[in-house]
Amino acid sequence: MSRALEALFAPSSVAIVGASADSAKWGNVLARGALAGMHRRPVYLVNRSGGEILGQRSLPSLDDIPEPPELVVVSVPASGFEAAIVEALAAGARAIVVVSAGLGETGAEGQVRERAVVERVRAAGAVMLGPNCLGVFDAAQELDLGWSELPPGSIGLVSQSGNLALELARLARDAGLGFSRFASIGNQADLVAADLVDSLVAHEQTRLIALYLEDFRDGRAFVAAAARARAAGKPVLLLTGGVTGASARAALSHTGALVSDARAVEAACRAAGIVAVTTPGRLIDAALALLPARPVAGRRVAVFGDGGGHGVVAVDLLAARGLEVAPLSEQLRKRLGELLPPAAILTNPVDLVGGGERDLANYARVGDELLGADEVDAVLLTGYFGGYSIDSPALADEEAHAASLLADAAARAGKALVVHTMYPSAPVATVLRSAAVPTYGDIERAADALALLHRYRRRHAGPAERPAHGRVLSNLPRPVAGYSGARALLRAAGVDVVEAREAHTLDEVLAGAAALGYPVALKAVDLLHKSDSGGVALGLDDPESLTRAFAAIRARHAGSALSVERLAPVADGVELIAGAIRDPRFGPIVLVGLGGIYAEILRDTAVALAPLGEDAAEALIRSLRGAPLLTGARGRAKLDLAAAARAVAAISEVAVACEDVEQIEANPLLVTPTGALALDARIVLLGVESPA
Amino acid sequence: MSRALEALFAPSSVAIVGASADSAKWGNVLARGALAGMHRRPVYLVNRSGGEILGQRSLPSLDDIPEPPELVVVSVPASGFEAAIVEALAAGARAIVVVSAGLGETGAEGQVRERAVVERVRAAGAVMLGPNCLGVFDAAQELDLGWSELPPGSIGLVSQSGNLALELARLARDAGLGFSRFASIGNQADLVAADLVDSLVAHEQTRLIALYLEDFRDGRAFVAAAARARAAGKPVLLLTGGVTGASARAALSHTGALVSDARAVEAACRAAGIVAVTTPGRLIDAALALLPARPVAGRRVAVFGDGGGHGVVAVDLLAARGLEVAPLSEQLRKRLGELLPPAAILTNPVDLVGGGERDLANYARVGDELLGADEVDAVLLTGYFGGYSIDSPALADEEAHAASLLADAAARAGKALVVHTMYPSAPVATVLRSAAVPTYGDIERAADALALLHRYRRRHAGPAERPAHGRVLSNLPRPVAGYSGARALLRAAGVDVVEAREAHTLDEVLAGAAALGYPVALKAVDLLHKSDSGGVALGLDDPESLTRAFAAIRARHAGSALSVERLAPVADGVELIAGAIRDPRFGPIVLVGLGGIYAEILRDTAVALAPLGEDAAEALIRSLRGAPLLTGARGRAKLDLAAAARAVAAISEVAVACEDVEQIEANPLLVTPTGALALDARIVLLGVESPA
Repeated sequence: MSRALEALFAPSSVAIVGASADSAKWGNVLARGALAGMHRRPVYLVNRSGGEILGQRSLPSLDDIPEPPELVVVSVPASGFEAAIVEALAAGARAIVVVSAGLGETGAEGQVRERAVVERVRAAGAVMLGPNCLGVFDAAQELDLGWSELPPGSIGLVSQSGNLALELARLARDAGLGFSRFASIGNQADLVAADLVDSLVAHEQTRLIALYLEDFRDGRAFVAAAARARAAGKPVLLLTGGVTGASARAALSHTGALVSDARAVEAACRAAGIVAVTTPGRLIDAALALLPARPVAGRRVAVFGDGGGHGVVAVDLLAARGLEVAPLSEQLRKRLGELLPPAAILTNPVDLVGGGERDLANYARVGDELLGADEVDAVLLTGYFGGYSIDSPALADEEAHAASLLADAAARAGKALVVHTMYPSAPVATVLRSAAVPTYGDIERAADALALLHRYRRRHAGPAERPAHGRVLSNLPRPVAGYSGARALLRAAGVDVVEAREAHTLDEVLAGAAALGYPVALKAVDLLHKSDSGGVALGLDDPESLTRAFAAIRARHAGSALSVERLAPVADGVELIAGAIRDPRFGPIVLVGLGGIYAEILRDTAVALAPLGEDAAEALIRSLRGAPLLTGARGRAKLDLAAAARAVAAISEVAVACEDVEQIEANPLLVTPTGALALDARIVLLGVESPA
Repeated sequence: MSRALEALFAPSSVAIVGASADSAKWGNVLARGALAGMHRRPVYLVNRSGGEILGQRSLPSLDDIPEPPELVVVSVPASGFEAAIVEALAAGARAIVVVSAGLGETGAEGQVRERAVVERVRAAGAVMLGPNCLGVFDAAQELDLGWSELPPGSIGLVSQSGNLALELARLARDAGLGFSRFASIGNQADLVAADLVDSLVAHEQTRLIALYLEDFRDGRAFVAAAARARAAGKPVLLLTGGVTGASARAALSHTGALVSDARAVEAACRAAGIVAVTTPGRLIDAALALLPARPVAGRRVAVFGDGGGHGVVAVDLLAARGLEVAPLSEQLRKRLGELLPPAAILTNPVDLVGGGERDLANYARVGDELLGADEVDAVLLTGYFGGYSIDSPALADEEAHAASLLADAAARAGKALVVHTMYPSAPVATVLRSAAVPTYGDIERAADALALLHRYRRRHAGPAERPAHGRVLSNLPRPVAGYSGARALLRAAGVDVVEAREAHTLDEVLAGAAALGYPVALKAVDLLHKSDSGGVALGLDDPESLTRAFAAIRARHAGSALSVERLAPVADGVELIAGAIRDPRFGPIVLVGLGGIYAEILRDTAVALAPLGEDAAEALIRSLRGAPLLTGARGRAKLDLAAAARAVAAISEVAVACEDVEQIEANPLLVTPTGALALDARIVLLGVESPA
């Protein structure tokens, strides 16, 4: 699957087409970058007018180059796009980077031009990055085309925005991090994000993959590549843009209304173990935590510092993130007490009360005790540490030594130590970071780092998080629109559906009820919001009340088909919504949530890529805020979570198996102590307008 | 109420008791700070051993001072505390700052010593700050006792932590902000936070009040002082510590379980218009936004930058904070188009696509158009701006000029402009901040600033947010424990309570039902979780089913009193919880939430200080996530929100009027289209153990 991109990142020779002597032009930046690598590989500058560029003679055409240029960078006006590619391929290019803008991003005509060129490139067995991109970078190869600010390091970066890459570079440098490779991917006409992720998975110097994407192209291919990265032990961090808007599918089912584009990305991240971030700053924060990747096996954090305020603030921040700062054991407090002045506070947070100031090594000694204790899963040092060398330069060596001992203690314990210092540019920050201790200048970010490390391990270690594929359903009937079509399809997939009789006349209604047995419910079908519009009557105990309900519903919904249904034991259970939609980028996505109006008003829903095995479906249900309603909280009955999970898994499998099903849902799906029963169903077929 | 603290912040003379020549001692820091103000006021250094300190002759005792020292700072061992205070008062001190630690913070004995000293201080008409504090600072007075890092400015700071104050000082300096006054309040033995807030309200140079507090002392006095600050146009920012733990009242009622200490602080903030923050960084961010305080009248934000990525990321961040980035009108796009290159993207976010780089003044022109448009409530500039002068120093003047024109445009429009720059230490950041444009180095913080400005105005401008005091209830019966006591008290306050008959025998039960009319419900009373423990039977249609229910409940709860109740129309309404508890610091607090198990599992609750007028009660209910359930969302019936608000207001008034009521609640409070009816009630009296 993965396309070998060595010609792109590690070319044996480079040509810049559109190299320029004008320092205001990108062709000049590219030429300068290329020339900086001349000791590694031949560099050819091509400019139609010829002449000298940055002290190097340029050539009028690629034809004049004495050898095939393995990598060709094209930075010419859009009008010259096709000609430049033809020339590059003729010259023998294996990889082409197209900086030129004004193509696919401007509309349909440009996209047609791009597609035609991609066919030629692929026919020649070459690859193309762009158009409308900024260039490529490989630290180990000393290849820096279009970029000049990237510190070297172990982050592989793929970005659809130049400015965001620039900001990431600045933030990474400040944090002591750097980049192994960078590709600006522009319009992704040939090479797409998934290809670049795959190349970074294979790239030894890359230990973490950072992405800024506005367009995922084939979302499933992207997810598969990200999952391969995760499996290779390389965390994938994703910053997305432009995914706020609800999609056009909104009106046709509740599931459709609830799965926005952003939630589809959330499902993709869940499936591939991607860490989603909201800003460049949070991306670098997360990289700082995940690159050393000391595990946080549990929730129990010990907090310490010299001075109380920061510790107290940290406790609140950690608690808000689901971590625990519990009192330390008597035994541990005793050992700490032996190290510290009598006034020191030995609960958790631990306040050295001058014990650090008196002897900076106490920071390391206390950290060592806390990190070594079985009752502690991770340690946070917060506050002034780092400031001694700032306020008293004579203490610089002593403080750096303490930092180094502290980092050793964390390494010995194999546990995460995260440090917040009021002085993030202090020398100890460098000491700590280079010794695999994530160090932040902001207490909130330090707390976020601990929460991420805990979540990251939990998400990707537990059994429910193994790639859990559903069954392949092969014997499903051809999907049919309408309420009975939805019921039939769900039933065929193994979902229990409430017993019902379709009816149009009063006689049929009464006959249906007689067959099912009273009490019954009567519904007008083929309405999206049946309950809201007076299309449902519940608890009909006898033919008289059924007759009255028939008249009332007929008066409101004259033409609608009706369904007589056995009354469900709603008082015994909890209603969920379980549905699936087909996302144009990520394919079938499954959604579960608290049912009925709660789904749309309280937005307690969770999403995942379909198909989903039963374990993963159960984990998805358990991730709801309202999950305790199902699991017997506060003395309530324990409901049949396994049955609910089976129904969710089955719906996810239907969405995968039936390619013409755009949306399908059971809503409500009544979960009782003994099963899960779909009380209502909807299906939307591709190209069919009306909901059902 | 307010105590004049001029002797503390603007003393005519200062004495340092415990001044030291040893630079490692706090008495040395204090002496150095005091001496730096010698051109403003006489300074006396007192040290029992005498000798020279920092080039100044010290005196062995306060008795040796030629004039009464208006401010005396005491930095002696705790053992000398009382003697030092006696000597200071005898010398005529009007204000005393006690740095000495080891007193009230160590336990009961120290607290007794503090209280005894406070009596003497007050009897002498003086004030005392501390003990266990670090000192005071007043920028205009050049008074800097115990502090040496505070940049001057307009923030008045009160802190219970030295390190947090130090971090705030560093962050403020980085952001171009500074401090008018600072008081480290330590144990608050005499002067408490409320006193200092009041003094800052009266202090002209203070324009914003920042607080770090772990202990609020008299919470209501604090709230009143903060509200006075708010009324004087001075925003109050509060960072709290140590308020995570649930209080000891947890078990006795649902309301008690739901109102943690942290939520009590939330209620206080709501009442006083305080902005609660979680870290020192967020405090300075908020100060940066609120000091210029250009209003954000609505949700409509226009975003622009040169380069697309940051704008796209900003849109997601703003949407997540409830702000709107809607497409611009044709008219506005046309005007922008005239300023920019053809490729520029004129939707919202606006991408200059090189139009800024081509002419930096275009940043100001585009900003001017956006700020001046009626369709725009606020503007966010994001991305590279600020970097031109970094990457091309020749552009420094041009960029600074553009920044200044941009700030002028914001001033003309009277609207908030917030800037995110990838280069927060660039010269333009200073230009912009000094021209009342909040400027951040992190896009998320810029989005937070806009959200804060919008919320701040909305919270404190609308009619529901005026201090809304409830009625004073004077004719309430003396509260009685137990279910019927709770019902009686609620009814007396004007809350509709479901009709019921107390019963103990089957005969009484049947007689009660006959009097009320079937169907009825039967409850075992005096159980906290009645429904969970099989103590409630609903929908009893006739004497037979009532008899069966009696037997079943008697089997489970042999001794309990019973209540026969008219069955409520639960299907027509939504259940809330409405209750009040008495917080040891903040007094009576009212809570509303989605009722039943949803309150405790989904935690959709809101809190406020009691009493609450009906308007404020309605606003509190409307602040719930689930509020649309009451207001007719999705075609549901519109419920009687006004009746619900009246009930909540009445409960809040009961909590204020009855000082021996520790907790009282109506749960559920059934809100129907025509009223609000308490279906169950609980009361907890002070000093009475059992729930009812």
